[in-house]
Amino acid sequence: MTIRVGVIGTGGIGTDHAQKLASSVAGSTVSVVSDVNRGRAEEVAALVGGARVAEDGFELIDADDVDAVLIASIGETHAAFTLACIAAGKPVLCEKPLAPTTPECLKVLEAEVEHGSRLVIVGFMRRLDAGYVHVKASLTAGAIGEPLILHNVHRNPTVPESFTSFMTMTDSIIHEVDTSRWLLGEEIVSVQVIPPKRTPNAFVHLQDPQFAVFSTESGILSTVEFFANCQYGYDVRCELVGSEGTATLVNPVVAGQVVAGRDSSPVAPNWRVRFGAAYHAELQAWISGLARGEIVGPSAWDGYAATRVTEFGVEAVTTGRRIEIDYIDKPALYG
Amino acid sequence: MTIRVGVIGTGGIGTDHAQKLASSVAGSTVSVVSDVNRGRAEEVAALVGGARVAEDGFELIDADDVDAVLIASIGETHAAFTLACIAAGKPVLCEKPLAPTTPECLKVLEAEVEHGSRLVIVGFMRRLDAGYVHVKASLTAGAIGEPLILHNVHRNPTVPESFTSFMTMTDSIIHEVDTSRWLLGEEIVSVQVIPPKRTPNAFVHLQDPQFAVFSTESGILSTVEFFANCQYGYDVRCELVGSEGTATLVNPVVAGQVVAGRDSSPVAPNWRVRFGAAYHAELQAWISGLARGEIVGPSAWDGYAATRVTEFGVEAVTTGRRIEIDYIDKPALYG
Amino acid sequence: MTIRVGVIGTGGIGTDHAQKLASSVAGSTVSVVSDVNRGRAEEVAALVGGARVAEDGFELIDADDVDAVLIASIGETHAAFTLACIAAGKPVLCEKPLAPTTPECLKVLEAEVEHGSRLVIVGFMRRLDAGYVHVKASLTAGAIGEPLILHNVHRNPTVPESFTSFMTMTDSIIHEVDTSRWLLGEEIVSVQVIPPKRTPNAFVHLQDPQFAVFSTESGILSTVEFFANCQYGYDVRCELVGSEGTATLVNPVVAGQVVAGRDSSPVAPNWRVRFGAAYHAELQAWISGLARGEIVGPSAWDGYAATRVTEFGVEAVTTGRRIEIDYIDKPALYG
Amino acid sequence: MTIRVGVIGTGGIGTDHAQKLASSVAGSTVSVVSDVNRGRAEEVAALVGGARVAEDGFELIDADDVDAVLIASIGETHAAFTLACIAAGKPVLCEKPLAPTTPECLKVLEAEVEHGSRLVIVGFMRRLDAGYVHVKASLTAGAIGEPLILHNVHRNPTVPESFTSFMTMTDSIIHEVDTSRWLLGEEIVSVQVIPPKRTPNAFVHLQDPQFAVFSTESGILSTVEFFANCQYGYDVRCELVGSEGTATLVNPVVAGQVVAGRDSSPVAPNWRVRFGAAYHAELQAWISGLARGEIVGPSAWDGYAATRVTEFGVEAVTTGRRIEIDYIDKPALYG
Repeated sequence: MTIRVGVIGTGGIGTDHAQKLASSVAGSTVSVVSDVNRGRAEEVAALVGGARVAEDGFELIDADDVDAVLIASIGETHAAFTLACIAAGKPVLCEKPLAPTTPECLKVLEAEVEHGSRLVIVGFMRRLDAGYVHVKASLTAGAIGEPLILHNVHRNPTVPESFTSFMTMTDSIIHEVDTSRWLLGEEIVSVQVIPPKRTPNAFVHLQDPQFAVFSTESGILSTVEFFANCQYGYDVRCELVGSEGTATLVNPVVAGQVVAGRDSSPVAPNWRVRFGAAYHAELQAWISGLARGEIVGPSAWDGYAATRVTEFGVEAVTTGRRIEIDYIDKPALYG
Repeated sequence: MTIRVGVIGTGGIGTDHAQKLASSVAGSTVSVVSDVNRGRAEEVAALVGGARVAEDGFELIDADDVDAVLIASIGETHAAFTLACIAAGKPVLCEKPLAPTTPECLKVLEAEVEHGSRLVIVGFMRRLDAGYVHVKASLTAGAIGEPLILHNVHRNPTVPESFTSFMTMTDSIIHEVDTSRWLLGEEIVSVQVIPPKRTPNAFVHLQDPQFAVFSTESGILSTVEFFANCQYGYDVRCELVGSEGTATLVNPVVAGQVVAGRDSSPVAPNWRVRFGAAYHAELQAWISGLARGEIVGPSAWDGYAATRVTEFGVEAVTTGRRIEIDYIDKPALYG
Repeated sequence: MTIRVGVIGTGGIGTDHAQKLASSVAGSTVSVVSDVNRGRAEEVAALVGGARVAEDGFELIDADDVDAVLIASIGETHAAFTLACIAAGKPVLCEKPLAPTTPECLKVLEAEVEHGSRLVIVGFMRRLDAGYVHVKASLTAGAIGEPLILHNVHRNPTVPESFTSFMTMTDSIIHEVDTSRWLLGEEIVSVQVIPPKRTPNAFVHLQDPQFAVFSTESGILSTVEFFANCQYGYDVRCELVGSEGTATLVNPVVAGQVVAGRDSSPVAPNWRVRFGAAYHAELQAWISGLARGEIVGPSAWDGYAATRVTEFGVEAVTTGRRIEIDYIDKPALYG
Repeated sequence: MTIRVGVIGTGGIGTDHAQKLASSVAGSTVSVVSDVNRGRAEEVAALVGGARVAEDGFELIDADDVDAVLIASIGETHAAFTLACIAAGKPVLCEKPLAPTTPECLKVLEAEVEHGSRLVIVGFMRRLDAGYVHVKASLTAGAIGEPLILHNVHRNPTVPESFTSFMTMTDSIIHEVDTSRWLLGEEIVSVQVIPPKRTPNAFVHLQDPQFAVFSTESGILSTVEFFANCQYGYDVRCELVGSEGTATLVNPVVAGQVVAGRDSSPVAPNWRVRFGAAYHAELQAWISGLARGEIVGPSAWDGYAATRVTEFGVEAVTTGRRIEIDYIDKPALYG
């Protein structure tokens, strides 16, 4: 039984997902694609072995030859497409964020609760990165005692001029928000943003790097250095400090070189290289789950909570003060 | 288009391959299985979602619902099954060795040459391990100059009593024989085996650890320490020493832990964990190649050359002397 | 020419210094010791090969057979002894802090300025740790661009019950205050302290771990995690994030072990092991400098500035708010 | 009490030793120096703060203001100077080799046995390298079980044209001969040399790299790759493989850098940087021992045994065959 996936949005990440679903994920094909740029959609349709091109995402969602939907269009469209999937009763993987605003997220939660069972997963793929899985396993196994602090580093080589200081929170640090919640098993209840000295390598409108301090319900701190233009590579790190020891994410290195007086190993050039396997694992877990009749992946609640935190995070970027975060009660559907 | 694979031999490695082909390799299913132990074959048939059980490997090879064959039965049966695949004109992945003796290997070469195009690949999966790929890339990119020495280490935690001193060569060091040939792009022309002090943790009939020194056509040395009962884990290493620097395979680590006075990372417990991704990549490359009408993987010549070296290697275990190795002329089919 | 050192205070650190000066530092002997516990002073006097025991620190300072003074008594006595050394015109190495309060530090500055040339150095030995020296060299060489953020970690295995939340600042984080100033070449102008969840392994009166964020004149952030009871070992880390790359202090490892499924290296059990070489280098540099007629080491200004920061840091522990720090004008003597 | 050392030979290593004895080793001064190049001796005499220049090594040895002698002249002179020291009853540190030939070494052994107590130590400083000490400690503590194989790597960036294939054994691999004997606590009883492909970066008369396999009394193998012109740096490695695990010498790294897509740390440029601390420790242990009336360091027997092995090693370079090594009975003086 092959799951026929419709892919909405064929930009960088959408194309990447479509190719994986068509060529390296077991049990799936890409049957239909759509994009605001029809020419681009047609290119990707050809690339994945001959998918059909739909007029738009809504037509795609309702198509008979689409069993499940992957949303990789721009964030502003996520909620509307996700709601249409729920209305159609079709499983959907929505790339992060679930929606840029919490009111939109709440509409998705309400619709899914109304529907009565889960259909939605959100693309927080780091939960399937082998390194993060090991860090969580160290904690769960009791090896490092009680969690007290989580130190995170998230560095991109460069970003385009369109990247803003708010996007450090909504597009980038949102990943650390999710991994913090997932690793620690607690909601984040406050956020403070403390701007470091700016790099000369960023456009003047961008505070870069950025430093944020989150705290959770039980008081665990999660610190995040985000650096959008670090120049040297794509580098994501995390150390979970426990009461008996620490567990650390290690950049996955498989080979080294010693030349000209230095012993070195490569740093990933971009997220595609660093998290390619995690994206594959996320898609495979989703497809394999669907084949068994299960919805496997971060829930719409996870999507809401992350957007909630980053919404306050944007305010914290502006004020510099510590801000408290509150949430609606978690619906029973999300356990 | 899904490739329907028949799997001959449902022991440890055969079951592992069958599960991958059924669940995580894109583009394949397992349609038929066979094993000398029919009960075991039935278990695996169920495990992979309902394959048919054939009377034996030959029936499986000829079955209409088998597009390609994976041979994972004991080494003594490899040549006969591979020849049957060639006779049937079906692509085949034969687990190493291609055959335990060179006369058998030569029959396979002759049959394939007679057939006129490649059908056979041999399961030297390390060529698809990300680490080995990086080491080769360092060399190819010219980063380390000309290759001069290759140091290899290959350690198993334990082996069963049935493992013999000859098997260090035919079952284990054969992997280093292949990676040496592949990394260096030259045939091995001599072998010497120098026994180290024996571990107290091996059965008395087994020389363990073992140390072998190979040399290639241009005089590059390839040293191999093989340790069957090293106790601590499964550990495969390789350093390629070039005239300008070195490239080193690094055990893939994704997370570390600091507790009780030590900073540590796990060593793989077995080959399944260490080379699981390489086995997957080997199968995916094979299946994806077949979908495009190509045969992708180490050739029957690679299988012959490896068996040739280990055949002399077994003699070298006995005599301790350096032994020269010769080959038939390479048929044009193998480039 | 041998420098005859008088050592005031023969507790843990004082004994350590005395032994180094007597046995492994070239060019020095320990001629006189003193301690509030005369019995202890006599033991150490014997240990270092027969020093004389003075009635108290002041007698020691004035003694004819004392060329230079090392102060390792409790912090509250530092200023008085240092002032006596200046009055006697004798060079002095004062263990950190120069004094617990800035009014005391200012008296030392005034006296030294009055004296007209430097006599005082303060025991910030990390500046002579090979790792910190490398980090600074990376920066100075321009390898990492402009400094933007400095991440520090400082962990002790355990502390006694007498250790207080304020002492995290005055006794421990004071080291990061000094290394931040020294690495970055700027004064610290603000401090905020953000308490993480507490470890169950600390006495209830102690906030442990602690997290502080300092900023410098040009806006560089220096973050410090201090963990007094981390259990696993003594672990000091630092990463200097620059606009083009980062430089990282690495725990000095000289050997590793692979056993029982883990590849590991030891973490230092205490500051003695971790910084033993830095303490030796600090003493040797001081003594070698004195032999040449030079005063080599962190100045009284460095001592004042560090105390100034930690004084505000103690207030920041209490309030949780970001506090601005101001300084007197730097006297010309301190360049 | 200060030990007045006379230094014979003021070339590279002699100057280095003289400076350490004068400036950073506690308890010693350099009182007299000599060299075949008197001008050079005068320079070094000034450098160490005003030593006297002797006519030759023999005059130096007999001088009243020389308490102990360090021999750093060329190898051919070592035995004669050492014998003169024994005749004068003065302690002597002889740089390796004790002598280039075993008959000369035997004369030293005889003279020292005749003298009735130890006076001679040989400069095998690696025994005092922190890394080697840790590897030995892992073994002694039982952490890795019984030793079975020792893998050694010894690489120089470049050597001058005067360096010969025999010198790989007598000047370089002699260090691994000593560390093997010391780590394993057994004599070496055979040696085989297997030449790898030559680097294009060596003069044509030099076999470079070189590969040697030693075995000990109980059958432990010690393999050595020596590479005189590896170009990239000075790199010494060692892995001791035991029946329960392995212990590995790690290049001492104190800081790293991440720039331009690579995470790197420096490799030592030369032996001075890599083993500077070990040379200092060797001298300090010798001087501190003399102050206590003890002779601390590798014995004349260690010097003889190392020369014995390399003498056979030179023959093995020529023949390529495994050669057995025998020794005189060890005199009681050497335990």
